[in-house]
Amino acid sequence: MKTYNVAVLGATGAVGQQMIQVLEERNFPVGKLLPLASARSAGKSVTFKGQEITIEEATESSFAGMDFVLGAVSNAMAQRFAPAIVRAGAVFVDNSSAFRLQDDVPLVVPEINPADAKKHHGIIANPNCSTIITLVALSGIRRVTPIEKMVACTYQAVSGAGVEGMRELEEQIAGHAKGEAAKPSTFPCQILSNVIPQIGSELENGYTTEEMKMQNEGRKIMHLPELKVCCTCVRVPVMRSHSISVQFVTEKPMSVEEARTAVAAAPGCVLIDDLHGRNYPTPLDTTDQDLVYVGRIRRDLIDDERGLTLWCCGDQIRKGAATNCVQIAELLIEA
Amino acid sequence: MKTYNVAVLGATGAVGQQMIQVLEERNFPVGKLLPLASARSAGKSVTFKGQEITIEEATESSFAGMDFVLGAVSNAMAQRFAPAIVRAGAVFVDNSSAFRLQDDVPLVVPEINPADAKKHHGIIANPNCSTIITLVALSGIRRVTPIEKMVACTYQAVSGAGVEGMRELEEQIAGHAKGEAAKPSTFPCQILSNVIPQIGSELENGYTTEEMKMQNEGRKIMHLPELKVCCTCVRVPVMRSHSISVQFVTEKPMSVEEARTAVAAAPGCVLIDDLHGRNYPTPLDTTDQDLVYVGRIRRDLIDDERGLTLWCCGDQIRKGAATNCVQIAELLIEA
Repeated sequence: MKTYNVAVLGATGAVGQQMIQVLEERNFPVGKLLPLASARSAGKSVTFKGQEITIEEATESSFAGMDFVLGAVSNAMAQRFAPAIVRAGAVFVDNSSAFRLQDDVPLVVPEINPADAKKHHGIIANPNCSTIITLVALSGIRRVTPIEKMVACTYQAVSGAGVEGMRELEEQIAGHAKGEAAKPSTFPCQILSNVIPQIGSELENGYTTEEMKMQNEGRKIMHLPELKVCCTCVRVPVMRSHSISVQFVTEKPMSVEEARTAVAAAPGCVLIDDLHGRNYPTPLDTTDQDLVYVGRIRRDLIDDERGLTLWCCGDQIRKGAATNCVQIAELLIEA
Repeated sequence: MKTYNVAVLGATGAVGQQMIQVLEERNFPVGKLLPLASARSAGKSVTFKGQEITIEEATESSFAGMDFVLGAVSNAMAQRFAPAIVRAGAVFVDNSSAFRLQDDVPLVVPEINPADAKKHHGIIANPNCSTIITLVALSGIRRVTPIEKMVACTYQAVSGAGVEGMRELEEQIAGHAKGEAAKPSTFPCQILSNVIPQIGSELENGYTTEEMKMQNEGRKIMHLPELKVCCTCVRVPVMRSHSISVQFVTEKPMSVEEARTAVAAAPGCVLIDDLHGRNYPTPLDTTDQDLVYVGRIRRDLIDDERGLTLWCCGDQIRKGAATNCVQIAELLIEA
């Protein structure tokens, strides 16, 4: 069986660690695994299939002989290393937002636009976490009829801010129990017992960078250049699953039952939709899983015939980042 | 100065306790204060203007000589006592949802439809907490042009489930710090590090009772029988301020600047809208205050000319319940 050498760039972060675990879980045909990180983490080790593998410092010469580089680093680091990765002949599956909207870079959710992955020129971008989860939730519906517009409000987990975000929430829970005041550092204010209506930085139009991703990336992934999205991104004190409330309008009318059937049949999706039985997705129930959970599907009360609304949850570190990256790499080895 | 005898029905609950505090803070001209509760709480006492007042058991004969009865009890209890209150000649300002949509019962937010209060026949209903906070946030805008439709997603505090809801979150925080598993009782599942997309019980159309209040009560309060609202109500692990993300379409176009000016000028509203400076309302910042805080006002990207979107927060126990009730009573003594 053919194997592939895989580097994980940013192997010590929440997403990088998860990538290594997902490669193992999905039995990706890894030849050599090369965990890369900053000089600070070099010399530490990761465990892969029962073996300790030493983390190396990422440099421009790290990528020789690699088939895939899975990127879980900042935009600046992704931009710094991309040329060296492409020169080395590896495919860079990058989780940063640096290349997502670049014309010659496919932006891929395997359940939606797998064919785009094949058109790469060395870089494939992994979409924003909330965007992936929302679009997978809608993927069954869009097979029946395109999405025209949507209003999305997110309930985003602290893992979106990495291990520091998760540590900050844990510390504030422990501190509260001891009567200590919270000391915000990763988030702009206390996140325990609070929600924060800002993720990303501000843009001219009053939206945040995070909020505009849902429209900009959604258009590219679904091949719907006219898609309109009004998004509000909110951080909530939840560990690692994002939730999104989505009101959306489809091109052709669709009944609630048709929508439920479409969601239930969609790869990567699980329908949990029984309000009477108190069954619907919650972030806690969907944590540390690769699937996107969808519930609360109902007729939108505004755009009667073509409007629907739903609730979805998905693990931010897995399907929102690491799992989707590994699935993209799988698309290329299937060929 | 004329004084009024005021009974608080449900004086031991979160809202009832707050009503007594708000009566004192706002210097409501109270003659006699009569705290009423179930037999279980009778004999305990409350403090009002430095005096200990004994709680009495609520019975049909409790209301003689009262001018106002502020209700902070269940629908069943409100329905049980309403006839006796009206017979006694008192005005029942009721926080339950039992009478809100009844034609002969005004449903009042003093900043919006104060004149309706005067048309009562002994009962005035206090609206749903999220509805009050959302409509006060929009009240300045609707003075300029009516709201046609809105998509509202809520981030609702545990105080909406009363003192038991707040205790459950506190216990889960303390328990988590000790490594104990959460024991949900008030909420259908763990609320710490989670969000729950169900408040209220299910209706035929797939919405919850809580979700339909925003449209049904919004229509009555704003005198907009055609108002369309698509609402999703979500419980979040926040102690007592509700937050709501609202995308809305107005009858006439309105610029973001006009909307900001209208919100800033609206009684009961505070505009905090500087994303660049990380200034926007959060539930923690707006806790235990009587005002509604509004921020993140921006052009909706779907309904270009007439659509706007905003974020608002307000204390659920105060403006969402107790303060609004006392303000309603104030409308009647001004006359």
